[in-house]
Amino acid sequence: MAKGLPAGPGGATGQIVFTSEEAVAWAKKGKTVILVREETNPEDIEGMRSAQAILTARGGMTSHAALVARGWGKCCIVGAGTLKIEASKKTMKVGDLVLKEGDYISLNGSKGYIYNGQIPMIKAAEENPDFQAFMKLCDAVRTMKIRTNADTPEDAAKARVFGAEGIGLFRTEHMFYGKNAEKPLFILRKMIASKTEEERRKALNELFPYAKENIKQTLAAMDGYPVTIRTLDPPLHEFIPQNEDGRKKIADSLKITMQEFDRRADALHETNPMMGHRGVRLGITFPEITEMQVRAIFEATAELLKDKKKVFPEIMIPVTCTELELKNQYEIIGRIYDEVCKKFKLKEIPHLVGTMIEIPRAALTADKIAQSAQFFSFGTNDLTQMTFGFSRDDIGGFVPDYIEKKILPVDPFQVIDFEGVGQLMKVAVEKGRGTRKDLKIGICGEHGGEPASVEFCHSLGFNYVSCSPFRVPIARLAAAQAVIKQKSAKPAVKKSATKTASKKTVKK
Amino acid sequence: MAKGLPAGPGGATGQIVFTSEEAVAWAKKGKTVILVREETNPEDIEGMRSAQAILTARGGMTSHAALVARGWGKCCIVGAGTLKIEASKKTMKVGDLVLKEGDYISLNGSKGYIYNGQIPMIKAAEENPDFQAFMKLCDAVRTMKIRTNADTPEDAAKARVFGAEGIGLFRTEHMFYGKNAEKPLFILRKMIASKTEEERRKALNELFPYAKENIKQTLAAMDGYPVTIRTLDPPLHEFIPQNEDGRKKIADSLKITMQEFDRRADALHETNPMMGHRGVRLGITFPEITEMQVRAIFEATAELLKDKKKVFPEIMIPVTCTELELKNQYEIIGRIYDEVCKKFKLKEIPHLVGTMIEIPRAALTADKIAQSAQFFSFGTNDLTQMTFGFSRDDIGGFVPDYIEKKILPVDPFQVIDFEGVGQLMKVAVEKGRGTRKDLKIGICGEHGGEPASVEFCHSLGFNYVSCSPFRVPIARLAAAQAVIKQKSAKPAVKKSATKTASKKTVKK
Repeated sequence: MAKGLPAGPGGATGQIVFTSEEAVAWAKKGKTVILVREETNPEDIEGMRSAQAILTARGGMTSHAALVARGWGKCCIVGAGTLKIEASKKTMKVGDLVLKEGDYISLNGSKGYIYNGQIPMIKAAEENPDFQAFMKLCDAVRTMKIRTNADTPEDAAKARVFGAEGIGLFRTEHMFYGKNAEKPLFILRKMIASKTEEERRKALNELFPYAKENIKQTLAAMDGYPVTIRTLDPPLHEFIPQNEDGRKKIADSLKITMQEFDRRADALHETNPMMGHRGVRLGITFPEITEMQVRAIFEATAELLKDKKKVFPEIMIPVTCTELELKNQYEIIGRIYDEVCKKFKLKEIPHLVGTMIEIPRAALTADKIAQSAQFFSFGTNDLTQMTFGFSRDDIGGFVPDYIEKKILPVDPFQVIDFEGVGQLMKVAVEKGRGTRKDLKIGICGEHGGEPASVEFCHSLGFNYVSCSPFRVPIARLAAAQAVIKQKSAKPAVKKSATKTASKKTVKK
Repeated sequence: MAKGLPAGPGGATGQIVFTSEEAVAWAKKGKTVILVREETNPEDIEGMRSAQAILTARGGMTSHAALVARGWGKCCIVGAGTLKIEASKKTMKVGDLVLKEGDYISLNGSKGYIYNGQIPMIKAAEENPDFQAFMKLCDAVRTMKIRTNADTPEDAAKARVFGAEGIGLFRTEHMFYGKNAEKPLFILRKMIASKTEEERRKALNELFPYAKENIKQTLAAMDGYPVTIRTLDPPLHEFIPQNEDGRKKIADSLKITMQEFDRRADALHETNPMMGHRGVRLGITFPEITEMQVRAIFEATAELLKDKKKVFPEIMIPVTCTELELKNQYEIIGRIYDEVCKKFKLKEIPHLVGTMIEIPRAALTADKIAQSAQFFSFGTNDLTQMTFGFSRDDIGGFVPDYIEKKILPVDPFQVIDFEGVGQLMKVAVEKGRGTRKDLKIGICGEHGGEPASVEFCHSLGFNYVSCSPFRVPIARLAAAQAVIKQKSAKPAVKKSATKTASKKTVKK
């Protein structure tokens, strides 16, 4: 019935509404709406969020509606000039046709076509043969594997639909945040507020079945694919309840006074928690935490192996800064491994043990770290924080200025800073593979789904990138493009190969 | 009259007391006391702190008294077995001689000799000819200059006595902490709570005369020597008053409500202030702050030059992570420089402009940074924090464990971590001098007075180290020892020189 600019690709069908408030109200009632506006402004945000798609009569490809919709991956058509919208009357006219609030329309956001009435939709990934065919093309070309960051069996299942070939980051702490978290979180809090190793072990024993079940479900959902399981990462004070009631419950369960509980909780406070007592540092001061987690991983794996499942856990140690941290943790992992093999009468439990590379010192000493680690996974969020000295939570005060004044070309948390952070990554890859030729290398920072960063990872010879489930298709495409780009730039590659060769000769 | 083990070098003379409480009480009355104990334990700490020196009848070179005294640089003799101490009677016997509370004795802590009565003392640095002669020996050998970190003219004067050849770190923010800080601190707080550039400029204009006078006095105290002046470094929220009264005063002066003041103050809160809005980041978002500071430096210098003083300010930009930050600040510095030259009718004002290297990214991109910077000064405290991901304020929870379990050989904030942090330093020196052959390189972190770290700086070809005034003599010695060690290890040096040469040939 009309045509506009294809501002946000994808299809949508729904009932039209003419104000942000109506969009919110209708969506709350479970209706699928398309927000129709002359043009949008920041006050329409909540309505835009609630709507299935956005349609405007004015504005170009960089109008407010277009930018917001693309940012969200939402279907959007702008600048459909033949629409005569009368918001006050809750109608819009297209030629002689008059549509009123609640009428159905459909949009093709990839072409800018607007249709009268409902058109059946298919799911973009699961049911779209064009998407499937295109992704197959990409898969045939790319050499890197694409994994996903997933903390729940549901996320894992979703990512498989998008083509993920394993999990690159499974955060064990997620069991304390999500649904059904109440009980394990309470036990964790008891553990944190414990004073003796004995008390901590008691709490950890209580926690063990939850941890094992959580890991087991995710491993099962990824049957046939590897799952990288990261040991506890956040500083413990993050889990301390803020409300009086929550604090009292834990104090009571430990039979201590509130004063004593507050004293213990306050002692955990940190000035710069990002660089505090977290990750492997917890595993070293409280080896019983590593023990519990590793036992959960091996027992979950053993039970699935007995059920003839194909499961490949990769145990990942976070926040490593020296190889001796790994050696310390490996002693624990080895001991528990032997115990579990014996308990389940298994000759071996296939697994890898590796580390995050997210601290500059880990990158700089990757040759030594690779003596213990069977894989590296770059945590480029933290690596960017430490390399720049930028606390991601606090850059709002200056990074926008930096970008405006062109001191930074782009937010380094969006696209890998090739010059600085990338330099450390390159050093780490070269040193790591210098020690261990077959070192498996991946990335699990958010950059893992950003095309320019994916290309960079390919150029460094990564085995895989891991990103959030929805970014898996774009990562598959970017990984394929990286191969093609590298091939078309072949002469340059050859030249540098010659250089390396001549250097080698000199060394002899 | 007796002899013990020389546990804490140096001399002391004073009146004897037999309990920690008496030592504290007598010292409060202005008396100089020597604490005499059978042996000491942690409960004696306050008395040991109050005493001029410590003498014990028992214990060895690693006894409690010996360890504490050496840590403090305090004169101490332990294990003087011929003393018969009767603390309850407040007497001690040496053979037939009976000394009671308040009697004078003297100690030679370097030899372990104990004398009856008062012996006149000379000041260790200023008046001791042996010290002077020994330091001269060191000075003849060493090639690195030794500077001091000093924030006040008094510190500067003290450091000159110890042989400092300039100031390597003058923190401009010190004027807001020390004595006479009340007025400038109030103005600074007004500036921080200001909302518009106009308000900020007004406050900065008020602050200007204080800043100028503060810088002028220190430059004058260092007549003949260079002074490295660092522009504002800490995050602004550090200066927000905590008490109601202080907050109200500023709100009133800005004619805003307390609610509004609190809102502005809260907006400055940071999750990880170590990696927040500080250093050059402030100078970029608020260029008027850099302007004021640079104008104060150039005007102070110009006035002293007119008085025929020899002053060499070195303007140092902190927290740099990319060369474009420097270029941004240099534009401001150049503009103010021209204005001040014109105002004072001077053809030139001798000065250097350089940067701290304290962020890993700055070290990694030192080749580009050296295009603008005339000197590098390594801030190894922060560089250690970011390289390890260790917040110095928060390592109490795990670094003691790390050292006990030998995961770290030593606290990296005491001795430079040669392997990780040192690797970044080496990269920065090589890249920096690759761009600018005569790049001046120094260190102003606390490691600058630690012997092993001083030796490492020498091995990298540093021009100077800078440390706290009291550590200047040890730095002079360590710098000389570094030269001698390097000479005796000559063959190894030669080998690496050959390697470099052959590499160069290849490049041609």
